[in-house]
Amino acid sequence: MRKPYFLLKTPPTTPEPAEKLAPWAETTVVGKPLPRVDAYERVSGSAVYALDLFLPDMLYAAILRCPHAHAIVKKVDTAAATKMPGVRAVLTDSDTEARIPWYFTEKGPTSRLFDPHCRYEGEEIAAVAAETPHQAADALRAIVVEYEELPFVVDLDSALKPGAPLIHEGGNQVEGTLVYERGDIAKGFADAEAIVERTFRTSCEIHTPMEVHGSVAKWDGNRLTVWDTTQGVFQVQQSLADALRLPLSNVRVIGQYMGGGFGSKLEISKHTVIAAILARKTARPVKLFISREESFLCVGNRPANTMSLKAGVRKDGTLTAMHLINRGAVGAYPGWAGVGSQVADLYTCAHVRVEETCGHINAGQERAFRAPGFPQCSWALEQVMDELAAAIGLDPVEFRLTSIPVVSQRQGGKPYTSTGLRQCLVEGARAFGWDAARGGHRRNGPWLRGAGVAACQWGWPGGPPSTVIVRYFADGSVSLNMGASDIGTGTKTIMAMVVAEELGVALDRIQIEHADTGTTQYATPSGGSKTVPSDSPAVRAAAVAVKRKLLAMGAEQLEAAEDEVVLKAGEILVAGSPDKKVRLAELEGLMNQQVVIGVGHREQNPLDKVTKPFGAQFAEVEVNERTGEVRILRLLGAHDSGRVMNRLTYQNQVFGGMTMGIGFGMTERRVLDRQTGKMVNSNWHDYKIPTAMDVPADLTCVPIDVPDNEFNSTGTKGLGEPATIPTAAAIANAVYAATGIRVTDAPINPTQLASLLADQRKRG
Amino acid sequence: MRKPYFLLKTPPTTPEPAEKLAPWAETTVVGKPLPRVDAYERVSGSAVYALDLFLPDMLYAAILRCPHAHAIVKKVDTAAATKMPGVRAVLTDSDTEARIPWYFTEKGPTSRLFDPHCRYEGEEIAAVAAETPHQAADALRAIVVEYEELPFVVDLDSALKPGAPLIHEGGNQVEGTLVYERGDIAKGFADAEAIVERTFRTSCEIHTPMEVHGSVAKWDGNRLTVWDTTQGVFQVQQSLADALRLPLSNVRVIGQYMGGGFGSKLEISKHTVIAAILARKTARPVKLFISREESFLCVGNRPANTMSLKAGVRKDGTLTAMHLINRGAVGAYPGWAGVGSQVADLYTCAHVRVEETCGHINAGQERAFRAPGFPQCSWALEQVMDELAAAIGLDPVEFRLTSIPVVSQRQGGKPYTSTGLRQCLVEGARAFGWDAARGGHRRNGPWLRGAGVAACQWGWPGGPPSTVIVRYFADGSVSLNMGASDIGTGTKTIMAMVVAEELGVALDRIQIEHADTGTTQYATPSGGSKTVPSDSPAVRAAAVAVKRKLLAMGAEQLEAAEDEVVLKAGEILVAGSPDKKVRLAELEGLMNQQVVIGVGHREQNPLDKVTKPFGAQFAEVEVNERTGEVRILRLLGAHDSGRVMNRLTYQNQVFGGMTMGIGFGMTERRVLDRQTGKMVNSNWHDYKIPTAMDVPADLTCVPIDVPDNEFNSTGTKGLGEPATIPTAAAIANAVYAATGIRVTDAPINPTQLASLLADQRKRG
Repeated sequence: MRKPYFLLKTPPTTPEPAEKLAPWAETTVVGKPLPRVDAYERVSGSAVYALDLFLPDMLYAAILRCPHAHAIVKKVDTAAATKMPGVRAVLTDSDTEARIPWYFTEKGPTSRLFDPHCRYEGEEIAAVAAETPHQAADALRAIVVEYEELPFVVDLDSALKPGAPLIHEGGNQVEGTLVYERGDIAKGFADAEAIVERTFRTSCEIHTPMEVHGSVAKWDGNRLTVWDTTQGVFQVQQSLADALRLPLSNVRVIGQYMGGGFGSKLEISKHTVIAAILARKTARPVKLFISREESFLCVGNRPANTMSLKAGVRKDGTLTAMHLINRGAVGAYPGWAGVGSQVADLYTCAHVRVEETCGHINAGQERAFRAPGFPQCSWALEQVMDELAAAIGLDPVEFRLTSIPVVSQRQGGKPYTSTGLRQCLVEGARAFGWDAARGGHRRNGPWLRGAGVAACQWGWPGGPPSTVIVRYFADGSVSLNMGASDIGTGTKTIMAMVVAEELGVALDRIQIEHADTGTTQYATPSGGSKTVPSDSPAVRAAAVAVKRKLLAMGAEQLEAAEDEVVLKAGEILVAGSPDKKVRLAELEGLMNQQVVIGVGHREQNPLDKVTKPFGAQFAEVEVNERTGEVRILRLLGAHDSGRVMNRLTYQNQVFGGMTMGIGFGMTERRVLDRQTGKMVNSNWHDYKIPTAMDVPADLTCVPIDVPDNEFNSTGTKGLGEPATIPTAAAIANAVYAATGIRVTDAPINPTQLASLLADQRKRG
Repeated sequence: MRKPYFLLKTPPTTPEPAEKLAPWAETTVVGKPLPRVDAYERVSGSAVYALDLFLPDMLYAAILRCPHAHAIVKKVDTAAATKMPGVRAVLTDSDTEARIPWYFTEKGPTSRLFDPHCRYEGEEIAAVAAETPHQAADALRAIVVEYEELPFVVDLDSALKPGAPLIHEGGNQVEGTLVYERGDIAKGFADAEAIVERTFRTSCEIHTPMEVHGSVAKWDGNRLTVWDTTQGVFQVQQSLADALRLPLSNVRVIGQYMGGGFGSKLEISKHTVIAAILARKTARPVKLFISREESFLCVGNRPANTMSLKAGVRKDGTLTAMHLINRGAVGAYPGWAGVGSQVADLYTCAHVRVEETCGHINAGQERAFRAPGFPQCSWALEQVMDELAAAIGLDPVEFRLTSIPVVSQRQGGKPYTSTGLRQCLVEGARAFGWDAARGGHRRNGPWLRGAGVAACQWGWPGGPPSTVIVRYFADGSVSLNMGASDIGTGTKTIMAMVVAEELGVALDRIQIEHADTGTTQYATPSGGSKTVPSDSPAVRAAAVAVKRKLLAMGAEQLEAAEDEVVLKAGEILVAGSPDKKVRLAELEGLMNQQVVIGVGHREQNPLDKVTKPFGAQFAEVEVNERTGEVRILRLLGAHDSGRVMNRLTYQNQVFGGMTMGIGFGMTERRVLDRQTGKMVNSNWHDYKIPTAMDVPADLTCVPIDVPDNEFNSTGTKGLGEPATIPTAAAIANAVYAATGIRVTDAPINPTQLASLLADQRKRG
């Protein structure tokens, strides 16, 4: 398969010489706290998600999945299933058209669509298309599969031991250990006046977006249309074209309203290709949505990591050395579970070494999950920072302030376009009442109270390619076409605000179509916190292109020079001639051509600098010293993500990120049964995502609203992922402040904590 | 309502300074006889027409129509209908939201959506939305309407008599008689050596496209989406926005596959607005398709004309004077039924006067119908030309050749960019074997054989605005977005060929999306034979823009100057350096940005010249002197429409046009019963459109393939309408040649002809 754009070696470039516009001097719409432009549709139920699609003659498909952690499929007998009422097609590995390679390494594919070697519970074995969903489910039960069960391994430590069951022929270790080193780590530790060394573990977390994953596929001749729950229509288009050997032009992928993805919809999943093949085989449209339970097994996860971090510090707060050894379990198929970036780049430190090794276990493959690797790293790094501060007797905030970087040490010492980390810490601490909150342990019956902090950095700022088209209709309303999906984050709202800012059009007169490879311009998938910083400058450029054309029309009609005219409140005015003006509604040029079109491209990122978002979060907790129960009293997120485009959606992102951080740090964990290799909590009842009861009412967002005008023309950096990175670590540090107990294994849970508290009591 | 673009006083201009590309020196794809790119979809049934759309929860609507030619609705009782099973809404003039003005003159509206004054059989009185089409139909029958029947008038002569029943308060004559005059008509007739004067009548013709008219409407909040059977999505968008008082951005109109329109789908019809209101009222999607029978009454027609034409000629063939008095019946509502253009412009003539008067009758409104007015004019003009030729003893072809214009006399004497009329006549005559066919009356039992010719000109060449986007994907396949509909004429095929020509991409790797106001760029409706000449240059400009970008990328990668590189067979080569080349598939710039986008605009028409297509057709017939039956033995169309883009679709158009010309001249006629005012043949059984039995096997197309490179960058002029203009007149002239009988009233039919033959026999 072609490589996804984010694996290309050449960095993405701007489609053409794209002008960088001067920063906004002041704004009238951008920055305000405005509700979503599509709030009505989303709340009323009129929004059409892919799951809501019904096409005439549509069939319903379902997938038979391997119930074993590791097995060879000896035989699949579909005879009975094929004859069942309503069944129109059964697809297995025996069908040539289904023999599609899947799960690639540099050396080639490691599996195929229905591979007889099933390496995890949930692998695809067969699929059925039937007239109703129930007939499809019944038919699955009628397929008789003969398995040869194999020994399995569901934790990385066991998997990497000699003699462990082999998941791939070459061994269970993913090829290559990634080593990053700068300075001289030995010298660093020699220079240190205090050293902390500790091993941290995080659990595997499942994305579980509200909307499950699925596709509706339909063929017209040799042309495939897929309505998909995806974060990136162009990404899915490319993968479908590769899998089915079609030209890109013959694959149209249409995004609908989206109910979240968190990375699990960043790339294609097998069910999409299966739907397409079944549709071709039956000559009918096919709808294939996986169940909630399937979504726990087969569409990715945040891998579990074991991180040994050793760090040295001088008494003045100078970090002298950091050494991280990380091991991560990528699941049964190729992937990567690195976490090291913040260790190498968040704080100034001369001597750093990061070693990362990944391995396979018999479980579903990892997949990018909101700031892949970063919350795990934060879990280790920020707790160690806490310990280092304690070791040298500095306040944790003060300590972090001694090591604020202004250049990216990881990226060749290039300066940052902006670094708001200091403001995040200082303004966050002030708003939180940090000094008061840290004023010693406070006890309330069995409840111990404490406060903690953690900082963060996010790794990828976004950039080109992004092309957007803005159309200005004769009545002054606007249509905006972009290829980026609004995955539920408010992208459409932000983009409409940019258009409103430039053109003075009311938000309810701006319409944005869904991402669609057939009709919208190319954009990279909505992920990596890069949608706003990548696409909003392209939107602005497109709106400005429209404005320039309107002004040129006005100048012509008013017989003025183009630099004499301005657009204001729906009129084009000639500076200094109060009576020379024309309403846009009376602009002859506009009437003649009916629509003015503006094409905008994302400008190139500055080549000599590096851009990253920063943040700091603060937590106050109470811990019940008898039961180990943790009450999060309040959370505060102070983030530097460049300009705040919409104060309300910005706050939504920070609150949502912190909520997910609570899940990562406190409640969420994939539990694989060591006896059977099967996941025992693959449902929303047993897998605990935070509910309203787990989230404190006292949530605060402190936006560090400093536009990064060097980076792009809207001054924006990413926010979606940073907001979830440091939450768990801040809570862990607060738990430590409350109890004196350093919880190294996430999630913190009453069982674990009660046991640790008991140990503490024993130690006296 | 806002005026449709074609009624704007300022002529349309190009959206921006749009470069005119140099003409193609030679072509490799353009010009070939290639099958439709969407032939598979259309033939296999997988093509989705608007009628094929089913949305979840969709209701079905139907319209109650007035059964009387002229009546006042005194009372509409919907109580019973409302209570019927499945009925979800009933809409009448009592509903405020339905009180939408309709049928406009300069002075304002003349009616409304459900006007109680019904002026023709079929006017809208109420509408119902129900769970099934049958429930909707049943509910219509349960609506009790109390009518006051009024006297009516169904022919124009009666309508314009004093004391006739008044259709509108101001009288039955449409305001204003259009008079065009040049030279001195009296002097012209004084100069003549022969004068012919005769009155011709044509019948009202119904469009009856294969696909009936309908819409599916769906609301999301305050936003309306309509899937429509329309020739122009932007036209319908504008009308809906006006009718429902919405910003254009809140109205999305999506075209699907189309099964013909012939002008009847050039503008919005009431059913579309009714569907939208019912959808809003019920908060459900609503599908409203009219029946075949309704389509005969309510969506337009080619009006009947009475044309008195007097013309003078000198013996050397010089036309000295032409005087046309035309009267046309526009139906019950505003319209125009003029025909005079070819009289004023097809042949050189110094002294011309055209007087045109239109009037109302109690029948459906006229609507643009394939070359509006031109076949009617041709019926009169070309028969008179025949008589003039006979009067001065010249061969009809030879006579026409004496008066070939090189300037448009009607448009200020501006020269034509090209005039292929001479070639049409000369090459057409040669291919037809004209001289042999004219060799005297030939008799075969009761069958008399004769041959006739008629020439034509079409009035409107098209032009801006048109914007097109071409996207070139990383694998070299292409997506093309344009706002022009392919109404069944092969537009998509032509446009794909233009892209293939410029970019060397195979046709099956080019995908074209349907016209959609939400996602495609602005184009005027597909009508007026202007789609190819208006939009193909924009497609070419967009493809060239892509090519230039690819070449720039190649030049950069090959370290060559941009003017040194050429694109050939999927590679970019440096002229003179055989080893410096790169395959497009390896173009780094393309890989980086994944898609190269080209925006193309239609260039401005030349301002100092006039562009018109020309044509000549030849017919040979046999007439049974006893029964009046006419057998068309063969037809030949020789057309100058500029460059022949696709020899196969070109031929399709000519054959289709001639077939429709047979209908106009021989079989089609709206019959309004004088006793009841009702149409007696509003179905495909009684209204005779030509079938395979009526069309000769011997059809010939002689393309005059001379690119009009002065007009636009593809050298194209329009073909769709010219192809139907002269057919009927050529047949009538052939009938004359066979029988000596001049049939002045269309359609020629056995009843009429048998009677004329009997008269002839009586006269001896």
